[in-house]
Amino acid sequence: MTAGTVADTRSRLLATALKLFREHGVEGTSLQMIADELGVTKAAVYYHFHTKDEIAEAVAAPALRELLEITEAAAAHRRQGARVDHALAGFVDLVVRHRALLALCNSDPGLVRAIDRTLNGLDDFKVRLLDVLAGPDPDLELMISVHVALAGIALAGGSPDLADVDDETLREHLTGIGRRLLRRPRRRA
Amino acid sequence: MTAGTVADTRSRLLATALKLFREHGVEGTSLQMIADELGVTKAAVYYHFHTKDEIAEAVAAPALRELLEITEAAAAHRRQGARVDHALAGFVDLVVRHRALLALCNSDPGLVRAIDRTLNGLDDFKVRLLDVLAGPDPDLELMISVHVALAGIALAGGSPDLADVDDETLREHLTGIGRRLLRRPRRRA
Repeated sequence: MTAGTVADTRSRLLATALKLFREHGVEGTSLQMIADELGVTKAAVYYHFHTKDEIAEAVAAPALRELLEITEAAAAHRRQGARVDHALAGFVDLVVRHRALLALCNSDPGLVRAIDRTLNGLDDFKVRLLDVLAGPDPDLELMISVHVALAGIALAGGSPDLADVDDETLREHLTGIGRRLLRRPRRRA
Repeated sequence: MTAGTVADTRSRLLATALKLFREHGVEGTSLQMIADELGVTKAAVYYHFHTKDEIAEAVAAPALRELLEITEAAAAHRRQGARVDHALAGFVDLVVRHRALLALCNSDPGLVRAIDRTLNGLDDFKVRLLDVLAGPDPDLELMISVHVALAGIALAGGSPDLADVDDETLREHLTGIGRRLLRRPRRRA
């Protein structure tokens, strides 16, 4: 195997796993099913991942890494308003681009648990994002609003009820709702 | 056993199960552990529940039944504004009273899954609550706001970050945030 085909197999493996997780849930998907669907041996899957939890974590990792980058880039702004605008726009965009993954998290808590168990740093960067959005010395209502905004946007983004709304429209509305919750002025159309 | 002691054992069993679920998670709690903690035989637990999932569902059932009652009482109002006020106040109050259970759902998706699996009618009454809050012919932004409000209020209510906020304060802020999302006028203090 060349380095190229190994990387290629890994990314095909993750795409296949996400597809099977969607169809059967994380609990209902086995390493053998992933191998069969890919047309490789179970040993080939083992070369990349030893457990299903490792696969679930790897499926979610790129989105979580992006969220960390967005948070750090937002924190680098000098004005608090600019920090909130950057973090909110980035968060909403991430949610909309990963709607399928979020929908899977909503319907399959096995995925959330696998991610939680594996990514120890998860709590840390949630705190960091909350800090950036709430700013220094937030009042309690703003702190609570930030919690409502993050949880609400992530879950609404993954809601099957809103699956028919196109990405651009969903992005626009979630941003508007987030701005209202985070006390940012309404944007001109 | 008299009817009284049976009902009493059942409610002690549920309280003990909730306590153990909190300490060990649903997955980490066995029927044997519940029996040991209660000081009864496993057979006595079996008399009430045959599986852990049945217990998890019974722990959550009263709150879900209440939510259904709130939704129906809200729907009975003639004006849409009164419907929203009733449903929102009831939902927030329910979330605040069941903060411990919601915190458990946040940290232990096993509970959510058990509830989901067992309560087939869950989807139906979520739709009903969404309908009451959004009213007839809602625009898309209001529909999305209702999703953000319900998910955000429930998750913020169960957030460990807000565990220090007392019930009355949390209720007041969540209601204020919900009113803003659902386009209801600010209340006089």
